[in-house]
Amino acid sequence: MKRMQIGLIGCGTVGEGVARILMEQKELIKNRLGMELILKKVADTDTTKKRSVTFDKGVFTTDASEILNDPDIDVVVEMVGGTGFARKAILQALDSGKHVVTANKKLLALEGNTLFAKAARNSVTIAYEASVGGCMPVIKTLRENLVANHISAMTGILNGTCNYILSEITRLGLSFDEALSQAQQKGFAEADPTLDIEGFDAAHKLAIISAIAYGMEIDFEGVYVEGISRIEPLDILYADQFGYRIKLLAISKNHEDAIEARVHPAMIPVDSLLSQVGGSVNALSIFGDCTGEMMLYGHGAGMMPTASAVVADLADIARDIKREDGGRLPALGYPASNIRRIPVLPISEIRTHYYFRISAADQPGVLSKVSGVLARYNISIMSVHQKERHASDAVPLVFMTHKAKEADVRQALAEIRALPEIGSDPVLIRIEDPGTNGRDESQNKTGQPSASCL
Amino acid sequence: MKRMQIGLIGCGTVGEGVARILMEQKELIKNRLGMELILKKVADTDTTKKRSVTFDKGVFTTDASEILNDPDIDVVVEMVGGTGFARKAILQALDSGKHVVTANKKLLALEGNTLFAKAARNSVTIAYEASVGGCMPVIKTLRENLVANHISAMTGILNGTCNYILSEITRLGLSFDEALSQAQQKGFAEADPTLDIEGFDAAHKLAIISAIAYGMEIDFEGVYVEGISRIEPLDILYADQFGYRIKLLAISKNHEDAIEARVHPAMIPVDSLLSQVGGSVNALSIFGDCTGEMMLYGHGAGMMPTASAVVADLADIARDIKREDGGRLPALGYPASNIRRIPVLPISEIRTHYYFRISAADQPGVLSKVSGVLARYNISIMSVHQKERHASDAVPLVFMTHKAKEADVRQALAEIRALPEIGSDPVLIRIEDPGTNGRDESQNKTGQPSASCL
Repeated sequence: MKRMQIGLIGCGTVGEGVARILMEQKELIKNRLGMELILKKVADTDTTKKRSVTFDKGVFTTDASEILNDPDIDVVVEMVGGTGFARKAILQALDSGKHVVTANKKLLALEGNTLFAKAARNSVTIAYEASVGGCMPVIKTLRENLVANHISAMTGILNGTCNYILSEITRLGLSFDEALSQAQQKGFAEADPTLDIEGFDAAHKLAIISAIAYGMEIDFEGVYVEGISRIEPLDILYADQFGYRIKLLAISKNHEDAIEARVHPAMIPVDSLLSQVGGSVNALSIFGDCTGEMMLYGHGAGMMPTASAVVADLADIARDIKREDGGRLPALGYPASNIRRIPVLPISEIRTHYYFRISAADQPGVLSKVSGVLARYNISIMSVHQKERHASDAVPLVFMTHKAKEADVRQALAEIRALPEIGSDPVLIRIEDPGTNGRDESQNKTGQPSASCL
Repeated sequence: MKRMQIGLIGCGTVGEGVARILMEQKELIKNRLGMELILKKVADTDTTKKRSVTFDKGVFTTDASEILNDPDIDVVVEMVGGTGFARKAILQALDSGKHVVTANKKLLALEGNTLFAKAARNSVTIAYEASVGGCMPVIKTLRENLVANHISAMTGILNGTCNYILSEITRLGLSFDEALSQAQQKGFAEADPTLDIEGFDAAHKLAIISAIAYGMEIDFEGVYVEGISRIEPLDILYADQFGYRIKLLAISKNHEDAIEARVHPAMIPVDSLLSQVGGSVNALSIFGDCTGEMMLYGHGAGMMPTASAVVADLADIARDIKREDGGRLPALGYPASNIRRIPVLPISEIRTHYYFRISAADQPGVLSKVSGVLARYNISIMSVHQKERHASDAVPLVFMTHKAKEADVRQALAEIRALPEIGSDPVLIRIEDPGTNGRDESQNKTGQPSASCL
């Protein structure tokens, strides 16, 4: 029986999970693969951390170079995170002909193009299923199962921390700060939650999967990012009254010669499947021109779900090694020579539905003025509601619009803000319907309306 | 650039979809694979069918042997269905060293063990992603993404026809017969709907995925099958009042030395994700010991979703051929030598929650008698409701139970039926909660409660 030797660099939460699986599920994996996955070395600078696994003598080291310089190690699992040492370790591993498995979405979002190219040059695999959506089979589904599909749109709940916080605000009527500190106490949010709550983590993931879906270079800089820290319970209440829930969505859409890629809070119909995704769970809805809507759902973070995806990557590499050949798939599912550079639309170019809440003086003529501004910018109103009066003499005016262009909306709101009757900055929340395929056109590339494919 | 030559046998609905994709999405696929998939021959005996594709001269034939005997054809796509000619064609293809792609769940459920063994002996691949759940990545997720997991349970809505009919009964209050004939008019049910509505189609699929999940031979005969033709609107109404929906579920559970595998109508909580799966859509919830609950959701049938999965299989094979080697994965994800024979529990051995509706004479003492019988069989009542009186002098008594053993339940109901106050056969519907992992024990193989993995 053949075997594959593994070096694990970084034994924090997910790294520990990987070690646990390789040790505790050894027989299961050997049974499935017909070969052994051997955890030869584990490197971590933290020697005091209490871990749930006990390593044999000689396995644990504080010196990662014992892994990187060991010619018997076939695969390096990078579980350090960040863009410093992790980057250096991956580059060194690739240069010495070792395969790499990582869950480091930030590094891939920022430097994936370089890393993938180096892996291809050196005929080794860099696998990263765990970088997006934890145990959900996102990368594999996009690279393999959907190979026959033009992907037209993806809508995801890709950050469990945000989803947990928003769910708790909705459920308990907490303020954002209360919900955040509760999430931190329960371990659903980091001490420094910025990457999560400001949307960057979801944006890293969106940049990666957009590249795979559309066959383009990773373009994190192009992704529009807006976090959830400014969401107020009042807006969640209104959303609820209109039959919506507020979620942090990662959205990308394919316009063939350009894409949309954006992360921001959005209302979605309460009866949509994505709105049912509560707590720290992730979900991704994918529209293919042959498949129609498909959805994946699962634990997007945490020790064991993420480690499960890491070990699946190891198994894929092992199945390849066993067959005495290089990587089965190029990193993005396309040969590097077919990867195109596709521009990302600026946020101003997108078209979607909108919800505005405008605080206006309670006097006649305000609605007429505001709707006049909207009309001048071609923003068509779907409904308008004047909510109950507050303590002040300002009343909230709530608008839901038909599809409009973001640039027009921003200009219109700036003009509205300047009206003497308007007391504060309007609240704008985009409304998305994950139940549609994200195209204005009802045609797909096979010349049939999307619905006929289903 | 390399290329792979394909022969398509059977150009009905899904076969036509495969041809369409191979012709219309040729460039996309070539771009993704770095090689060409060439549809060299299409065989079908029906020369009069109107098809949405036009074949080049010499491609279409009525004689499948032109494909089976063509040494230049690398892969045979079997889209005939059934267990007659399809079986013969697959065996001949495997014997002549051709890879096979099929969506034929019935054939695989009944004869997969033989076919898979022959493929392994001849070092060719038999791929069948499209046989379960249409475009949902069921087979790949189980064989590859979940390789590190002991699968403890799967709960699926695997038949779109049944799901559509049940959804319409629920939505419109139709009778079963009305809903069925409507489904037939709309093309969601076949002229002979038996395979679907009696649960066999879902059972074929369950037999296949259970084998993969647990590493066992396919055992269709062991699957318990009960269809939806006896579901009455009244039960759906009650289910609704108690916060449940009725779905045809395919359920399998892993008890390590035995499994459960059963297909039957079941109530599921209205707020569970699976209960939100409406119309002709499929969904599968999978519990892994590392991943916790994961769910896949998508179109489980239809020309293009199914064809999308067939072409994904072709792409997998092409990626392997390109690398000049045999199949990357054994058919079940385990080497044949590791496939165990595991018994399937008879339905009498399962334990679940139950809903009974009993029609009883409206007189004192009936409840006491009925609940006395249940108590004698260790069936613990969670709640009991006496519903409004009907035209007759019989009233419906509705029970919801804690977990009980099916054998006990059947005995108890037989005794209850024999009571003089009981006017007709009791209605029994099992209640499943897809939100749990399907084990009584809270332990998994890593020695941790399941929840700690999440």
